[in-house]
Amino acid sequence: MIRRYEFGKVLETEAILEKPEQAEGAVPYLQVDEAKRSLLYEMGEKDRVYGLGENLRGINKRGWIYESRCTDDPEHMEDKRALYGAHNFLVVDGQDQFGVFIDYPGILSFDVGYTRCNQLKIQLSDWNMDLYVITGENVRDIVRQFRRLIGRSYIPPLWAFGYGQSRWGYKSEDDVREVVRRHRELQIPLDSVYLDIDYMERYKDFTVNQETFPDFADFCGEMKRQHIHLVPIIDAGVKQEEGYPVYEEGMEKGYFCKKEDGSPFVAAVWPGKALFPDMLNEEARRWFGNQYQFLLDQGIEGFWNDMNEPAIFYTEDRLRQVMEELESYKGRNLDLDTFFSFTNLVQSLSNNTEDYKEFYHEFHGEKVRHDRVHNLFGFNMTRAAGEAFERLVPEKRILMFSRSSYIGMHRYGGIWQGDNRSWWSHLLLNIKMMPSLNMCGFLYTGADLGGFGADTTEDLLLRWLAFGIFTPLMRNHSAMGTREQEVYRFEKTEGFRHIIGLRYRLIPYLYSEYMKAVLRDEMMFRPLAFDYPSDAYAAQVEDQLLLGEELMLAPVYEQNKEGRYVYLPEEMKMVRFSEDGTVEEKILPAGHHYVKVPLTDVVFFLRPNRLIPFADVAQNVDEIDFEHPGVLAFVREEACYEYYRDNGYEKDYENPAHFHRICLKKGESSPTVF
Amino acid sequence: MIRRYEFGKVLETEAILEKPEQAEGAVPYLQVDEAKRSLLYEMGEKDRVYGLGENLRGINKRGWIYESRCTDDPEHMEDKRALYGAHNFLVVDGQDQFGVFIDYPGILSFDVGYTRCNQLKIQLSDWNMDLYVITGENVRDIVRQFRRLIGRSYIPPLWAFGYGQSRWGYKSEDDVREVVRRHRELQIPLDSVYLDIDYMERYKDFTVNQETFPDFADFCGEMKRQHIHLVPIIDAGVKQEEGYPVYEEGMEKGYFCKKEDGSPFVAAVWPGKALFPDMLNEEARRWFGNQYQFLLDQGIEGFWNDMNEPAIFYTEDRLRQVMEELESYKGRNLDLDTFFSFTNLVQSLSNNTEDYKEFYHEFHGEKVRHDRVHNLFGFNMTRAAGEAFERLVPEKRILMFSRSSYIGMHRYGGIWQGDNRSWWSHLLLNIKMMPSLNMCGFLYTGADLGGFGADTTEDLLLRWLAFGIFTPLMRNHSAMGTREQEVYRFEKTEGFRHIIGLRYRLIPYLYSEYMKAVLRDEMMFRPLAFDYPSDAYAAQVEDQLLLGEELMLAPVYEQNKEGRYVYLPEEMKMVRFSEDGTVEEKILPAGHHYVKVPLTDVVFFLRPNRLIPFADVAQNVDEIDFEHPGVLAFVREEACYEYYRDNGYEKDYENPAHFHRICLKKGESSPTVF
Repeated sequence: MIRRYEFGKVLETEAILEKPEQAEGAVPYLQVDEAKRSLLYEMGEKDRVYGLGENLRGINKRGWIYESRCTDDPEHMEDKRALYGAHNFLVVDGQDQFGVFIDYPGILSFDVGYTRCNQLKIQLSDWNMDLYVITGENVRDIVRQFRRLIGRSYIPPLWAFGYGQSRWGYKSEDDVREVVRRHRELQIPLDSVYLDIDYMERYKDFTVNQETFPDFADFCGEMKRQHIHLVPIIDAGVKQEEGYPVYEEGMEKGYFCKKEDGSPFVAAVWPGKALFPDMLNEEARRWFGNQYQFLLDQGIEGFWNDMNEPAIFYTEDRLRQVMEELESYKGRNLDLDTFFSFTNLVQSLSNNTEDYKEFYHEFHGEKVRHDRVHNLFGFNMTRAAGEAFERLVPEKRILMFSRSSYIGMHRYGGIWQGDNRSWWSHLLLNIKMMPSLNMCGFLYTGADLGGFGADTTEDLLLRWLAFGIFTPLMRNHSAMGTREQEVYRFEKTEGFRHIIGLRYRLIPYLYSEYMKAVLRDEMMFRPLAFDYPSDAYAAQVEDQLLLGEELMLAPVYEQNKEGRYVYLPEEMKMVRFSEDGTVEEKILPAGHHYVKVPLTDVVFFLRPNRLIPFADVAQNVDEIDFEHPGVLAFVREEACYEYYRDNGYEKDYENPAHFHRICLKKGESSPTVF
Repeated sequence: MIRRYEFGKVLETEAILEKPEQAEGAVPYLQVDEAKRSLLYEMGEKDRVYGLGENLRGINKRGWIYESRCTDDPEHMEDKRALYGAHNFLVVDGQDQFGVFIDYPGILSFDVGYTRCNQLKIQLSDWNMDLYVITGENVRDIVRQFRRLIGRSYIPPLWAFGYGQSRWGYKSEDDVREVVRRHRELQIPLDSVYLDIDYMERYKDFTVNQETFPDFADFCGEMKRQHIHLVPIIDAGVKQEEGYPVYEEGMEKGYFCKKEDGSPFVAAVWPGKALFPDMLNEEARRWFGNQYQFLLDQGIEGFWNDMNEPAIFYTEDRLRQVMEELESYKGRNLDLDTFFSFTNLVQSLSNNTEDYKEFYHEFHGEKVRHDRVHNLFGFNMTRAAGEAFERLVPEKRILMFSRSSYIGMHRYGGIWQGDNRSWWSHLLLNIKMMPSLNMCGFLYTGADLGGFGADTTEDLLLRWLAFGIFTPLMRNHSAMGTREQEVYRFEKTEGFRHIIGLRYRLIPYLYSEYMKAVLRDEMMFRPLAFDYPSDAYAAQVEDQLLLGEELMLAPVYEQNKEGRYVYLPEEMKMVRFSEDGTVEEKILPAGHHYVKVPLTDVVFFLRPNRLIPFADVAQNVDEIDFEHPGVLAFVREEACYEYYRDNGYEKDYENPAHFHRICLKKGESSPTVF
């Protein structure tokens, strides 16, 4: 049951397209304190709190304070409170069981037992919101109702389930060719190469550097013949440069965000001074979306939207001020206080929340200051693209994922999990984030495998890939200046080939699970607690995940470990894939186990009376035989699997012809397909 | 067996007081590449590498690259390569088994299978070193031989095993009184309060702010009557200020580090512009050590030496340059490259390795550029203090620990584990660092419990204290601007009282273990692998430690966990201390266990036929009854314990009267003491 309560003058986020009527009576569970702009709930000692999407720390969010304040902060450390997304949905699971969604575009915080152990406190910046309280049969049901409320999640093309290679640092056609050549030579499957900011001409959106990519359309074709999709990056800021058509047209039509006095708001990002298209203004959004045509025309079928929190290196105004203030430090003895104020001054240039009060949107016909709708910017940039694709290439699925997001954006694209680092703890964070994101509608997601910032190690990359083969977005990405981390840079080539090859054997299953989760508002990845609610131990497990109804994953995420503890809430079949091609299957009883997992092994667990389709290895998605997969099964009596299969490019998602049934009875050697 | 090999012109670090003769023949195990200034070793796939003292990452150091380059970096993240200390000792345990100590005062790196999985590469900045290769019966024996070589570790006074409270932010007598009052009122034991930089007059070493501490000697006395020791901080830099006697005398005598042209090297730290006493010059060191008299005279009996890497906020010269260069950025469009070079310019002011090439020492009568002996600075600052205490108060033990260190410094003081953060991962890092530090002679050590930087949580502090009660230095310390983290700021007072109270019950055992480890060159904390070398699983355990010969610790270091997996290499007795005062004892078989540990429980494991002395709770160390402790025992046939006990203040450490024997036979109800 979903109850909506309206407070103040709501700014329509369009997170929810069809709002239910306002509910009668008092808000259940929550104590509403309008004077303090807060919602309070007294938690039981053992209550758990799930949700909040893209965020730091655990699956159970207790014991920290989180902010929904989309921010470009590449230091994803334990004590941070906000990342790139604003996902204001949580579920309390304990004495009471209910979901809460705060549909509110401004900045708010969730104190989940940080200040006081048993208090949940939601604090808003102003008192205008739609508050949804959702109850249901159990946690999965509450999430399902919420997902239905917010609408169907984005569906990418099939090839986007292949392995992608990226690096901030590929500068030319030849750089890309080399990446592809090395993968093909070593028989390491690959479906895409990402183009970071260097493909552009001086970081100008919707341009291509003519020196390094002299005939981009031709190059796209060359790559496609090798079954490789190029995926360029698009930044939120449009370079301020006379003669650059996107800038000139945007200025002429008044599509960029403005300061209070109506003059353009100039903030610097990659190209230096730039302007932000007013993504919240329908007309400007349409115009910005139309720009993607430039790349679509050259054969591009996928994009990633970046810097759309929006990130700000500095604003023109603040830089001027800071430069002046720096003067005053000259010739002084800077002690503790003055030296830190000096360095803070320079740090204050970037992503300064005060700058978010300096520009305005034209939002549903009203002039609204940015900070009040801050969390909607990335959402609407990606919506600009998604809506444009529907207009420009309605017959096609286009790959689209974003860095910043708000619930609602999940209908237009996925997200990657931002600028993480080559830290073992970020592999674990990747694991923990998957179900939280799924709860909030973000199904097409994954982390930068191997880690974006910092230097990776071979073992970290192997272990990370061994988890990454299960995430819908599977991309190896790294930053300029860090150790090169394409898999061919390392020694254990056979191990990498084996692990990435396994991804391709699993794609029929993973794609089928993805599509069913989307079409039925289900989570593809779930914590154990969601499926085994009466198992007190399962409730504490934060490093294992359920995938679909069939698998349990228990990745190794620590260095120099040859195995790990695994908790089985019920009897399961362990399946082990070794580098030498052997597949070991072993039934383990419910309970605690120590499982050996050598560095290039992949292990997962099949639940009883379940099976999954399992294909042969392929070098790219086009080569996979979806029609005649084998199966992996744990049959006690009978295992049946509902197999979703379409051509991966068209949009007749609901066509009953896509749904097949594969069954295997005890004693049978091969399955029956219906 | 210890073999020493001399290369080039050795700069005498005095890490080792009595050097063995040079060995004949080729260096065993290591491939010596003088041209590349490196040492190479091909590791077996499963070899483990232990040591490197204060460092990031695991107990087994494989899979990363470490630098010995003492540095003031408060961001102890996984990808960092160096912390505050330089501890160039490691042990390879695998196909071969040997220890390596590089006695070398410059900057070097240890690539332990980072670049190539199976290669250990030690890279020096120049080719002047003493190389020691140590072989022995087993890893413990190799470490013992090394420890004997470097000399007996520092011994603090007994009260330094009590609980200490610290915060950068106590500004006055009344602030300190309040801390003491709240602990005493709530019956939370306490033996010391630390004074961070605010007790000084404008951050000048060896001064006391007369406004906030009007009669410091009197205040020290007042505290001592309450069994509280005040422990002030001492910084490495001496403020440049006319009329300040320490500055003036140092200048007059030429005791500060100088630039190449002989002019003083001015670098800023807390007070702004300051000078570094030349700690490497014997005469200057003696002079600096004598300054501690000022505080000793007022009743101070303990100090912590800070900022002695040495940390540099900026140098006078570089600040001038940077200020000029900043000019050139004015009025420009700063894009990606120029904006980052602009911000990097400001960041480059602090702890810039180039600045370490700008000043010189008078080292054994020679003028030596700082970078060549960089890692000796903190060592010799603490040595200055330690040698002074021997001269000035020879009858007393003075508490002394340092931030920066080099092997050799362990004879003069302990270290704290630097400016960590309130991260769960730093609790785990604290656990992992203990044995590595013990290997290198640092026994009096501990981390800032609850975390120094960032905001702590109540559960993190509880869990951290539950480990911290075992570390010789047990101090709760936090930084200005972070959440207040004295235990009385939180709700679970009884839990804190219980956990800290347990520390005091354990002090007779912990002190006894400390003293035996010092006197016998043993490690107080060891990885399981050291005691169970043939147990392949034990070799992988990185989150459990052996303490002495009696205990195994298995701390909980994850949020929202009510227990953890524990591996028992042999049958042990689990002892559980609960908040309600109950002590549960339960014998568990060898193997893997899941053990419940509620938030305020403390659990440890007693090895078979072992016992430990166990006292009643006390409010401070003076109150502990060391003479008549009870025991906790796991007796199969007979358990005996060698109990070391002295008055905790005198220095007749080896007196046989301090050694007692406590034995308990099966079936006996009370132990026999010999």
